[in-house]
Amino acid sequence: MGKKITTRAQDYSQWYNEIIQGAGLAESSGVRGCMVIKPYGYAIWEKMQAELDRMFKETGHENAYFPLFIPKSYLSKEADHVEGFAKECAVVTHYRLKQAEDGKGVIVDPAARLEEELIVRPTSETIIWDTYRKWIQSYRDLPILVNQWANVVRWEMRTRLFLRTAEFLWQEGHTAHATKKEALDETEQMINIYSKFAKDFMAMPVIIGLKSANERFAGAEETYCIEALMQDGKSLQAGTSHFLGQNFAKAFDVKYTTKEGKQEYVWATSWGVSTRLMGALVMTHSDDYGLVLPPKLAPYQVVIVPIYKGNQQLEQVTTEAQRIKNLLEAKGISVKFDNRDTHKPGWKYAEYELKGVPLRLALGARDLHERTIEVFRRDTLQKQTYNVSGIEDRVKNLLDDIQENLYNKALDFRKKNTFIADSREDFIELINKGGFVYAHWDGTSETEELIKQQTKATIRCIPLGIEEESGVCLFTQKPSKTRVLFAKNY
Amino acid sequence: MGKKITTRAQDYSQWYNEIIQGAGLAESSGVRGCMVIKPYGYAIWEKMQAELDRMFKETGHENAYFPLFIPKSYLSKEADHVEGFAKECAVVTHYRLKQAEDGKGVIVDPAARLEEELIVRPTSETIIWDTYRKWIQSYRDLPILVNQWANVVRWEMRTRLFLRTAEFLWQEGHTAHATKKEALDETEQMINIYSKFAKDFMAMPVIIGLKSANERFAGAEETYCIEALMQDGKSLQAGTSHFLGQNFAKAFDVKYTTKEGKQEYVWATSWGVSTRLMGALVMTHSDDYGLVLPPKLAPYQVVIVPIYKGNQQLEQVTTEAQRIKNLLEAKGISVKFDNRDTHKPGWKYAEYELKGVPLRLALGARDLHERTIEVFRRDTLQKQTYNVSGIEDRVKNLLDDIQENLYNKALDFRKKNTFIADSREDFIELINKGGFVYAHWDGTSETEELIKQQTKATIRCIPLGIEEESGVCLFTQKPSKTRVLFAKNY
Repeated sequence: MGKKITTRAQDYSQWYNEIIQGAGLAESSGVRGCMVIKPYGYAIWEKMQAELDRMFKETGHENAYFPLFIPKSYLSKEADHVEGFAKECAVVTHYRLKQAEDGKGVIVDPAARLEEELIVRPTSETIIWDTYRKWIQSYRDLPILVNQWANVVRWEMRTRLFLRTAEFLWQEGHTAHATKKEALDETEQMINIYSKFAKDFMAMPVIIGLKSANERFAGAEETYCIEALMQDGKSLQAGTSHFLGQNFAKAFDVKYTTKEGKQEYVWATSWGVSTRLMGALVMTHSDDYGLVLPPKLAPYQVVIVPIYKGNQQLEQVTTEAQRIKNLLEAKGISVKFDNRDTHKPGWKYAEYELKGVPLRLALGARDLHERTIEVFRRDTLQKQTYNVSGIEDRVKNLLDDIQENLYNKALDFRKKNTFIADSREDFIELINKGGFVYAHWDGTSETEELIKQQTKATIRCIPLGIEEESGVCLFTQKPSKTRVLFAKNY
Repeated sequence: MGKKITTRAQDYSQWYNEIIQGAGLAESSGVRGCMVIKPYGYAIWEKMQAELDRMFKETGHENAYFPLFIPKSYLSKEADHVEGFAKECAVVTHYRLKQAEDGKGVIVDPAARLEEELIVRPTSETIIWDTYRKWIQSYRDLPILVNQWANVVRWEMRTRLFLRTAEFLWQEGHTAHATKKEALDETEQMINIYSKFAKDFMAMPVIIGLKSANERFAGAEETYCIEALMQDGKSLQAGTSHFLGQNFAKAFDVKYTTKEGKQEYVWATSWGVSTRLMGALVMTHSDDYGLVLPPKLAPYQVVIVPIYKGNQQLEQVTTEAQRIKNLLEAKGISVKFDNRDTHKPGWKYAEYELKGVPLRLALGARDLHERTIEVFRRDTLQKQTYNVSGIEDRVKNLLDDIQENLYNKALDFRKKNTFIADSREDFIELINKGGFVYAHWDGTSETEELIKQQTKATIRCIPLGIEEESGVCLFTQKPSKTRVLFAKNY
């Protein structure tokens, strides 16, 4: 059997790291804070990308690509934006190395200093709005609905694989509109797409809401977010969609001529999700045996492990396994047949449990006689033997069932860990216990900051559609019109 | 009508730029040497990516992702490699900006200097082989067949959109093998895949060959390439596949235990194609009316333009156009219906000619009565009116025919511009005329360098499978065993 991993109860953070490593998702590199995304992890990310890209295109967006580098002066043009991003960025100052005079390796060539430093993009609003100025003259040029898949760099001091890395992969949508209403509609449309993706593909329930001023994107007028509850009771911001108003249009002087011949500034949105979703996926479903993957994002949904003694049995089992593999693939199910003779079945079982493969089929010589096959569900850890006839339909149904079960399980977990606090004491106790806590707040940034200092909890969002309800702020006793969602967070 | 572009005969280089700009493929950005790939250009690149990615996966490769940054010391570990790449790279020296004391913008924070500078990857052999050391212990871990889609930066002094830019997009495959033979087989397999992709999708004939020592990748023992002849008689290197021997395994100490328990260095390959292919595509097929796209890479293969007077006609034509669009899409053909009322049909015709859409269908009120439709082929510039019944099969056949015709036309052009030179005078005359020139060469780097200085021509490759033929070098009269392929190049 494979080695056991640390359990969640023993050390949640260690459990997370061991799953990332054990399942072969990612690892640290020789470059501080930068990760290597390994093939199995990247295959999951590719599935996420494919579904998101399809959803973006179905809503009229096109992909494009903008430069990796941003001239330093661009960053400064939007005041809040530079404040938010200048503190943690990679700065390119030179464009050449030369042989060291002592012959030992290479050094930066001091003669090759750039006139203006370049920032490795932490996000691309500035370079994109500098470009949009050239693309937009008239109302006929609007809207622009563009997305980019790219790498970005933020010089985080404390990094964790997928959750917070210096370089990460993401998509960033940047749209330009003639009216405020159209831009607001776009902002909402995209947060709804993220929410739908989280639910339908990641099997991860999320709360959609607005950020408070403190947590807003640097340069945005409103930030919508989706927040998901992790198994340790912390919240994870899984995606954001920003209404940027006319801030970037004004900073980069992007105007258009209206039908009536007037000059107006353009309205903007931006929205993104990143490889952080990989961390969210791991922490939403996995258990003490390893990764648990929703079938819709699994690199292979089914693994077939042959059980045999000697070559003759292997041949017979292989023939049948191949037949079953073909049947499943004809139904659109992805299947790996693991016939390596370098590892025993028990070792393989533990391996695929750790890798979170939704269904494991074991096929032995006796099964051939009895026309049976053993099926193991990763989500429930239950084994059952089925008649091999009609196995393709049964597997298809089981995969659908797993996808649904994982969502319901996560939703159930969230329900059990969502609380209402009506006193400061209750609030502190509940926050320390972990989970989502709905509480009244007086609406000021000062109080939010105070609560953060005293409890480490922040306002994750002001949930959309939450009912108005008069109350008093738990920390200041000032009046409050609605409860907001608090939690500790990643 | 749309504006005319500069012809190839007038100014080839200007013609190229006007197509890139006019068709909406790319543009220069505010960052020196970095381009913006616009949606129409990016859509073509996505089609290239999809086909290549499929071909890589069908041959057992997986995607992964490695860091953007390479510590300076890594680059130095392979002597030829650093020599080749240190001269033109972007160097990150700091990780923070701060507010300038005069309050005007931000400056680099001198307190945030990196201990070791980071190079923005010009190619990833060093960071990847540093990683492979951790992945490879035994023969059971081999082969590793990994590819990465990424951006890379080389600080080119003279840049041209797609052909030579400071940042470009590419894929880089990096494989590790137990034996030399396996690595050599992989190197050849990948250059054959590139050649097949160029032929089947880009409709671009290429010559496969080996690079001479001068033109080899820095760190490779052999470099295979595909070379394509552009319409100005220059050659364009469209893809390379490198046999790296054990150079990187030795530089990064990557050994494996053989079945017999011995320690051996691992054998390596790397191979890549880039957004340079976009430039090759433009220059292979386009004409004096604009871009010409092979149907297999066109973002939309067919555009339908309605011809109408008044709303009633527009409605009738729209109904029929939608019906035809549906018929075509059911055959897997991508169709755009351009019913914008802001532009006249003639303007649209010129626009789609410039954008290289393979087939344009024009549908007017008279066509509705006569059950006809006018079809314009972008490759031959011929118009023909067909009966609308069965139009979907006709369009399908026409698209296949265009794909084939473009390849044959390009092959024909290459044949007409491929020469054999048997004297120094002939050689110089032919090279100045432009085209591929087969000539004898004495096999030395010195002579190759001399020829380059005297004629600006380089050895594009030693074509695979070329027949041995005794002769004498045109420049030194020393003996030669085979002709090699000379040309001026991009």
